[in-house]
Amino acid sequence: MNKKKTAVVLLSGGLDSATCLFWAKKQGFNCHCLIFDYGQRHKKEIQQAAKIAKTAKCKYQIVKISFPWKGSSLLDKNIKVPMSSFKLSASSIQHASVIPSTYVPARNTIFLSFALSFAEAIKAQAIVIGANALDYSGYPDCRPGYFQAMQKMANLATKAGVEGKKIKILTPLLHKTKAQIIRLGNSLKVPYQLTWSCYRGGTSPCGTCDSCILRAKGFREAGQSDPAVTR
Amino acid sequence: MNKKKTAVVLLSGGLDSATCLFWAKKQGFNCHCLIFDYGQRHKKEIQQAAKIAKTAKCKYQIVKISFPWKGSSLLDKNIKVPMSSFKLSASSIQHASVIPSTYVPARNTIFLSFALSFAEAIKAQAIVIGANALDYSGYPDCRPGYFQAMQKMANLATKAGVEGKKIKILTPLLHKTKAQIIRLGNSLKVPYQLTWSCYRGGTSPCGTCDSCILRAKGFREAGQSDPAVTR
Repeated sequence: MNKKKTAVVLLSGGLDSATCLFWAKKQGFNCHCLIFDYGQRHKKEIQQAAKIAKTAKCKYQIVKISFPWKGSSLLDKNIKVPMSSFKLSASSIQHASVIPSTYVPARNTIFLSFALSFAEAIKAQAIVIGANALDYSGYPDCRPGYFQAMQKMANLATKAGVEGKKIKILTPLLHKTKAQIIRLGNSLKVPYQLTWSCYRGGTSPCGTCDSCILRAKGFREAGQSDPAVTR
Repeated sequence: MNKKKTAVVLLSGGLDSATCLFWAKKQGFNCHCLIFDYGQRHKKEIQQAAKIAKTAKCKYQIVKISFPWKGSSLLDKNIKVPMSSFKLSASSIQHASVIPSTYVPARNTIFLSFALSFAEAIKAQAIVIGANALDYSGYPDCRPGYFQAMQKMANLATKAGVEGKKIKILTPLLHKTKAQIIRLGNSLKVPYQLTWSCYRGGTSPCGTCDSCILRAKGFREAGQSDPAVTR
């Protein structure tokens, strides 16, 4: 009988979640990846997420959900993805005072709810999410307090919780800088050439959105070039 | 300019959520109903939910989601919906010690997450859910503590919460018996003939599942016959 612990890993195709997957494997988890097809602007990140799961030799499942409302530039092609408004200093990000238009209302909550349901169904002990509250876009559902509240809710929501078998929500990257994440990923042999971070679609990253700016900052500070950028 | 408050109402087609919709209208809310097509055993409740929303003259939206895993008799036709195991006394329900197979892992959490996203997108002030912790099937995600934890999480998850415009999760039926719900519904002219509670499909309610037993108990105690039962 397989006594290995099981984790549900939320995989987006980006750098952070790929690092999480390899981190969870290293922790000894048997990993099941969940990839969401939620009507995002481009399918590239879904394809890349599937490739990453395959490279990690992990099971994955693509969950199709519809947000039947708009309001985010990541969902609505009529809203432009903004140029990054970050003011970068040597080692920190200064956020603009407003939450950017790339914010998708309650996205992490929806993803974690599905992960919770899946984790309970397959009797997994943990959920792993690559959220980051340091080099991030300033979304409310990436902050430490949010994840603490989510954990409390999850304990009360499930049969597993009632039976004393709490499903842990793990956020191994929450307090790391992008450079620290990349260094961790290098030690875990994460295939960063397969990851896709750009908020826009296209054949190569735009280099100007929040996500590209954060990624470039990370590789620069980690002292290496980005293997996904061939330009 | 329309200054009416807006509420997102989770509508299942059952007696409780229909009562909630009419309650919310009475409170002065402009109601947007969310109906979930989540691969449940039968489509009857979805059709009935749409009819109820139309009767209430409210907007509604059917949200299609897939649970790509099984594990509940409400999702998996290979698992039988059990006969009710309730021990009914004159006024109370005694729950069996195990959570029944009709439990869908984290279902209310997923529904509320979508409602939260929708509420934020349309700038609604409230979410209304017809959960009940008295005459109910014993699901963990129907208990008062769960909703308190969900509210705390929701406040932290959203841009609305960050900006001090918290989206309230309202559970007007949480502490009511089925008979009290029906009496409230009568005063609000809820079209109970349109509601469908049975866990099984078919042309008429089975009369033996938890949901049918609870409903019958409610109408009996309210001293009236069930307008949806024509047998």
